[in-house]
Amino acid sequence: MTIYTHTNAPTQFVDAAGIRFAFRRFGNQTGIPLVLLQHFTGNLDNWDPAVLDGFANDREVIIFNNRGIASTNGVVPTTYAEMAKDAEAFIDALGIKTIDLLGFSMGGGIAQLVAQARPDLVRRLILVGTAPRNGDGMQGLTPEAQAIFGKVRAVEDEVWMDVFFTQSEKSQAAARKFLDRYRARTVNRDVNISDVVAPAQMAAIGEWGQPKGERFAYLKDIKQPVLVVNGSTDVIVPTINSYHLQQHLPDAQLILYPDANHGSHYQYPELFVDHVTRFLRT
Amino acid sequence: MTIYTHTNAPTQFVDAAGIRFAFRRFGNQTGIPLVLLQHFTGNLDNWDPAVLDGFANDREVIIFNNRGIASTNGVVPTTYAEMAKDAEAFIDALGIKTIDLLGFSMGGGIAQLVAQARPDLVRRLILVGTAPRNGDGMQGLTPEAQAIFGKVRAVEDEVWMDVFFTQSEKSQAAARKFLDRYRARTVNRDVNISDVVAPAQMAAIGEWGQPKGERFAYLKDIKQPVLVVNGSTDVIVPTINSYHLQQHLPDAQLILYPDANHGSHYQYPELFVDHVTRFLRT
Repeated sequence: MTIYTHTNAPTQFVDAAGIRFAFRRFGNQTGIPLVLLQHFTGNLDNWDPAVLDGFANDREVIIFNNRGIASTNGVVPTTYAEMAKDAEAFIDALGIKTIDLLGFSMGGGIAQLVAQARPDLVRRLILVGTAPRNGDGMQGLTPEAQAIFGKVRAVEDEVWMDVFFTQSEKSQAAARKFLDRYRARTVNRDVNISDVVAPAQMAAIGEWGQPKGERFAYLKDIKQPVLVVNGSTDVIVPTINSYHLQQHLPDAQLILYPDANHGSHYQYPELFVDHVTRFLRT
Repeated sequence: MTIYTHTNAPTQFVDAAGIRFAFRRFGNQTGIPLVLLQHFTGNLDNWDPAVLDGFANDREVIIFNNRGIASTNGVVPTTYAEMAKDAEAFIDALGIKTIDLLGFSMGGGIAQLVAQARPDLVRRLILVGTAPRNGDGMQGLTPEAQAIFGKVRAVEDEVWMDVFFTQSEKSQAAARKFLDRYRARTVNRDVNISDVVAPAQMAAIGEWGQPKGERFAYLKDIKQPVLVVNGSTDVIVPTINSYHLQQHLPDAQLILYPDANHGSHYQYPELFVDHVTRFLRT
């Protein structure tokens, strides 16, 4: 029997809510599966194999493309609320009754809404490099994010060296290692996202940046244990937002890693897997 | 051969800088010893056995009374700078060339100064429930601290239930367990502190609260890896100060625990020992 990893797990499909969702699942099929929600413009390949394979030692890992992203069909929604409903439809279609949920960046906003709406489904929540609604500096892409994503590059995927890592020598060395891992899947990679993904997701990011009722009040309704993780100097989703999440969620632990930007979990994959595993174990 | 624990390790004495320092040392005598710096009004008995015995599995643990505290003679200094010099004299007198250093609350301020002054001595630093110089709300004892320490109690050591724990049912249940552990040493407990300790230490806390040069600039000189730990809602040393430490130290990881006050590490002793052990291992 083949033991799949993030680098060779086949892409599968499941129909739900009129959408054909592309997904991959692999790892230890005991216990509670971990479902992951992806960042801005990311597809199935944009996760770090070191992190996902680390998780997969202990549990089943499930990644998917939400509506309209890469190999999943449909029209990309322009709000996190719609993306959350689609994510719920996908999880329900798999017939899974209890999950742990990890959301990274934009995925972390969506994860908050899924956890709030479905306390019976989501046991524990991990929020990485993300912000609450109406977070600090989150009324759209930050100036740093606009500059980084707007830069023309000879090697396209080197954009992640600036999005996820700081400019320090140490962090850039970690970025090179991450890129190697990210490129390791050479067969059956996901299809590229279409040109309509980024604008629709930017609209959703902008909407999530707007106030709605009392600031941060909705976080009190997310009663699950939460692990909030970020880098010390996230220029994409400013780090203070992770502090806000921790301070306003009823049961949240915060971990901030040193000399790290938006992809702190890809800079310290072994440490991050250890911290998450410890958090999920209890 | 007796394997000592925090509950039965004998009190020893060493002379340095004209002071006879009282200390205890126990645990696994391999690797780098961990030296701990105590909080306001605390003596040798004020550490949590669950935490210290947890550390002692992996390394030697060294606790001591600084000048003028309980079983250590001399006059209590009124600045952290003097306390740091005394701490260095104590460590040097033991003939140890490399240590890891943990400072809790007031001890965390002193630990910063020792780490800054002695980069060759201090390999790694752990700052628990503490603040940088001129921290937010740290111009003296906080109003909450004044109320808690000022309250007359039938059972004196129950003060720690309010200093270290939140008022939630869960946190107060953890407080009861902590008190049981704290009281477990029934033979050869340390002597009580004298009446001059609290006023002198309050003067030192007040002095540490004052500005001196550019705010937080000195933290850039502490180049060791640092683990900063606190509770979500520390009313003795406001939690935001731990965030400030993480943001201004060059190489600091931050961990904040949920529903926890000043003694978050005593509320989650097993998790804290795991996090610290992981931090010290690399």
